[in-house]
Amino acid sequence: MDQITVDDIDNISLGATLLGAGGGGDIFIARLIARQALERHGPVRLVSAAEFDPEAWMLPVGYVGATTVLLEKIPNGSEAAAAIAALQRYMGIEAAAIMPVEVGGANTLIPIAVAAERGLPLVDADTMRRAFPEIQMTLLSAAGISATPMALADAKGNGLVCETTDNRSTEAIVRSAVVAMGYQAAAASYVVRAQQVVDHAVLGSVSYCAQIGERIAEVQRGREGAWDELLRFAEGTVLFRGKVVDVNRVTTNGFARAVIALEELSDPDRVLRVDAQNENLVAVEDGRVLAVTPDLICFVDSETAMPISVESVRYGMRLHVLALPCAERWKTEAGFALVGPRAFGYDIDYVEFTR
Amino acid sequence: MDQITVDDIDNISLGATLLGAGGGGDIFIARLIARQALERHGPVRLVSAAEFDPEAWMLPVGYVGATTVLLEKIPNGSEAAAAIAALQRYMGIEAAAIMPVEVGGANTLIPIAVAAERGLPLVDADTMRRAFPEIQMTLLSAAGISATPMALADAKGNGLVCETTDNRSTEAIVRSAVVAMGYQAAAASYVVRAQQVVDHAVLGSVSYCAQIGERIAEVQRGREGAWDELLRFAEGTVLFRGKVVDVNRVTTNGFARAVIALEELSDPDRVLRVDAQNENLVAVEDGRVLAVTPDLICFVDSETAMPISVESVRYGMRLHVLALPCAERWKTEAGFALVGPRAFGYDIDYVEFTR
Repeated sequence: MDQITVDDIDNISLGATLLGAGGGGDIFIARLIARQALERHGPVRLVSAAEFDPEAWMLPVGYVGATTVLLEKIPNGSEAAAAIAALQRYMGIEAAAIMPVEVGGANTLIPIAVAAERGLPLVDADTMRRAFPEIQMTLLSAAGISATPMALADAKGNGLVCETTDNRSTEAIVRSAVVAMGYQAAAASYVVRAQQVVDHAVLGSVSYCAQIGERIAEVQRGREGAWDELLRFAEGTVLFRGKVVDVNRVTTNGFARAVIALEELSDPDRVLRVDAQNENLVAVEDGRVLAVTPDLICFVDSETAMPISVESVRYGMRLHVLALPCAERWKTEAGFALVGPRAFGYDIDYVEFTR
Repeated sequence: MDQITVDDIDNISLGATLLGAGGGGDIFIARLIARQALERHGPVRLVSAAEFDPEAWMLPVGYVGATTVLLEKIPNGSEAAAAIAALQRYMGIEAAAIMPVEVGGANTLIPIAVAAERGLPLVDADTMRRAFPEIQMTLLSAAGISATPMALADAKGNGLVCETTDNRSTEAIVRSAVVAMGYQAAAASYVVRAQQVVDHAVLGSVSYCAQIGERIAEVQRGREGAWDELLRFAEGTVLFRGKVVDVNRVTTNGFARAVIALEELSDPDRVLRVDAQNENLVAVEDGRVLAVTPDLICFVDSETAMPISVESVRYGMRLHVLALPCAERWKTEAGFALVGPRAFGYDIDYVEFTR
């Protein structure tokens, strides 16, 4: 895959919704924005990080905010441009490529639109290959790279650039500012050299996302063996097939938290509990942890094979609960410290799920 | 007064505490910082705005945060320098002078220290000639001048620059960020040309503050007629002499709110109620508004003649409650809209206090 065309948007959107792991923001608007940008400006070149001059600047962009709000407030498109302009001016640099911060959720599609609008290539890489809710939760962070200078811009024309001593402070300060900016802002952050992407990011994640989406589409078309092919390609498994019997949610401090209970269809005594904070983080059956962050826990509608977000889960839905392995680079001490279960307040250790 | 020396700090501190109108942050630490800076770097030149090249840049600085926190967290001095450096770099300017945002409270003294450290003159002017709790509450704001670009820096080395479409958005975004920065940050904002200061700010407010302080000192020394001289100079009045019989406080959203009741010493049936949000805003006796923002309502200890902040008011204290007129420039429609009683949620109109 060396470019992204309008025709790729459906697969990328499907893949991004699954890799959102229940979160990552609603894809609907982002998909329209990406499609429109590609129709207007033509395809976006998708380039491996290794193909750039190692010193070239890569500019990660995305939206920061509560996923519940993304459903209600439509970005007007100027925010991302404003954030990028502010950051480039502040740093005195000219980026060679746009990069997704997260390949997972709406933030997979926004950088495609931004790259199209600016006539820049998109790096086939990201900082997590799933969605995570906090700014410090990236592989660049795990590698000791600062998220700042970081620029934020909202749809009303307000903007800020912040520079902090550590990425957790960035999260605290930016999260507060974003709440005041109406719970949503475009962000440009984690500006890195191409070589740093090669060394520390997830490589090939945009094409991975498109390939995942292609395989979900096959499942949706009812092609025989498509489920197996999806699971084989993603090295994933179906943890549980059940009906949603309880959904408990609350939005606090800009995060959408939820606890979802599912009952096994054929055996009502089997109950799976999934804890989410924007994204699904822990899946527990009968006290046993089946899968846990940073591995991906994903809901897929049992009938339509549509990936379902935590926000869309409703009582009575029949879901497949999938587990997909996280990018291998997450499996370090620094990685687990940032995005392992304890980083989200769960008193459990990471365990690999059983395929 | 054409310079500020170490010997002026006591009078300026006294004046600033009174002009804090019950708020403006505790002066204790700011006074030490200013004294130390003057001892180390020598006197600061105090210059009228009209003496500068009309195009010269004036750089207002101060601290933003909850006054209750200023008592507990000592600024380390580097924050203001960081905020100034960030803003000058961002705007690509070199300021000709430092300016106090508010002459009233701790923010009167911080700019003196900053000016001393940087070897810059201090403009004898400010944007309010009292203390107000929100960023948009300045005469520059009333004149339609943007508070941004605004730079913030905290003691941990975190900083941000924000640019907004209006000063109320600045307040909302900056307030949120400051809460995340530990409730306190140094700020550089409202950068203006010298001519804009001449046209819109309060001129001569630093020397006014020193002269007020000098007169309070005379009262404290017990000089005969000193009270009258203070009131005559300030064109103020004593609204009430009483004992504090009730103090109700709560810190919300970074603001210290309080309602204070005083009982007239000789006539316990007479009760004054003072409402404060960081600063004293409304003084009401028996349903009648005696004084109201933007005029200053100030507590002075009846025995020691020390100006008393809302935070320091305690049950049983004997206080003179003074009213001082606000700077004349506040008395416009735009001024009242920003800092009149309705701006703070009180359903009353501005009335001049009776001398």
